[in-house]
Amino acid sequence: MELNIDILTLFPEMFHIFNYSMIGRAQNKKIINIETHNIRDYTLDKHNKTDEYPYGGGAGMIMTAQPIVHCIENVKKKNSGKVVFLGPRGKSFNQNFAKELSKEKELIFLCGHYEGIDERVYKYVDMEISLGDFILTGGEMACIPIIDSISRMIPGVLASNESFMEESFYDGVLEYPQYTRPDSFRGEAVPKILLSGHHENIRKWRRKQSLLITKEKRPDLFKNIKLSEEDKKLLYTK
Amino acid sequence: MELNIDILTLFPEMFHIFNYSMIGRAQNKKIINIETHNIRDYTLDKHNKTDEYPYGGGAGMIMTAQPIVHCIENVKKKNSGKVVFLGPRGKSFNQNFAKELSKEKELIFLCGHYEGIDERVYKYVDMEISLGDFILTGGEMACIPIIDSISRMIPGVLASNESFMEESFYDGVLEYPQYTRPDSFRGEAVPKILLSGHHENIRKWRRKQSLLITKEKRPDLFKNIKLSEEDKKLLYTK
Repeated sequence: MELNIDILTLFPEMFHIFNYSMIGRAQNKKIINIETHNIRDYTLDKHNKTDEYPYGGGAGMIMTAQPIVHCIENVKKKNSGKVVFLGPRGKSFNQNFAKELSKEKELIFLCGHYEGIDERVYKYVDMEISLGDFILTGGEMACIPIIDSISRMIPGVLASNESFMEESFYDGVLEYPQYTRPDSFRGEAVPKILLSGHHENIRKWRRKQSLLITKEKRPDLFKNIKLSEEDKKLLYTK
Repeated sequence: MELNIDILTLFPEMFHIFNYSMIGRAQNKKIINIETHNIRDYTLDKHNKTDEYPYGGGAGMIMTAQPIVHCIENVKKKNSGKVVFLGPRGKSFNQNFAKELSKEKELIFLCGHYEGIDERVYKYVDMEISLGDFILTGGEMACIPIIDSISRMIPGVLASNESFMEESFYDGVLEYPQYTRPDSFRGEAVPKILLSGHHENIRKWRRKQSLLITKEKRPDLFKNIKLSEEDKKLLYTK
């Protein structure tokens, strides 16, 4: 097993999504193992309550510390990985982060829900990750794309006919336009160069398109590209 | 119905996730309607193929234009909303984006998979959104948190005991620490001020904590806050 993931959540059913596509296959091939744990099963409260009103007033319910901490401690008996909390104070997730986490052998993800978790849970958390600057109904919605992004970087997870967009993304440029059959679709033809069989010209054309698209769509990325002499030639000569 | 969403995907099963929690409830209450359409059902190829090798060579398979375009055209018969493609060239998703899209009555989401879609599909797309600067196995993984984030802003979707973190996020500051019962957990007490019942002092304490946490965790957000006179006093006097 390359990566053992335990997920602590109030909604284990949401993670059925990992039964499909690439991660479903990686689980069948025993490259990745994903287990969910229902935080509600760890409450000592006889009504199985996992949330309470916040001290000091205010809208929303706060997840209580006890079931979360007991759940973490139980999972830690078999998983010695970092405890990652999905939350708004975290470092923003990006491709380098995905690469770094894909080297781990074990990870524990904690998904909060409702208005948030009791602050005292943070003592049991090793790392907080934010998916981006937007609000979600629960950590589950961040956990899913993050696990997807990490998993696809583990050797053997991507099938050979699946992509390796990494190169371009690492390079800080967006992908060039892709075309497949038929060579004419509703009167729109594939650029002739792609049918030429001339690999070097195709490579240059694709590089030029990548640079132009990045310049137009993501000027923030473009200004960080270290343009090679060839890049400058592709961009600034006709 | 406040928002009608149609999702075009090769993996409709992944969207069972919207049967749970808040969005499941919003669907039962007929505030939101989410329907999925399997792109594979629209292929005219007798083997139901939806992908082909890229012209010009390279790793990965490209989704062909025909089934995607036919699926879009069919869905447009009943949904006149924007066609939103989840892809890397898109504008980065954030809370303002969520707010803006939550005002729409109809939306069509197109999820790509594999290495990408045939460039000629872009003609049928109104808007491209990127979840962030990381690579996912498919648009589904971006579509799910984006729909979650949009949906929770529609009136009636959040229950009264669910959160309204908006205020703090719009304001550009992170949330203050939250505490709930018990007042002592493993020897760690709730800050006394939260038990004081003094609303004005609690408000100030929370504001100060929000500012301090934002300063520490997200200096990029902190530098954009327009500090009020009170904020300055809270931050710079003891």
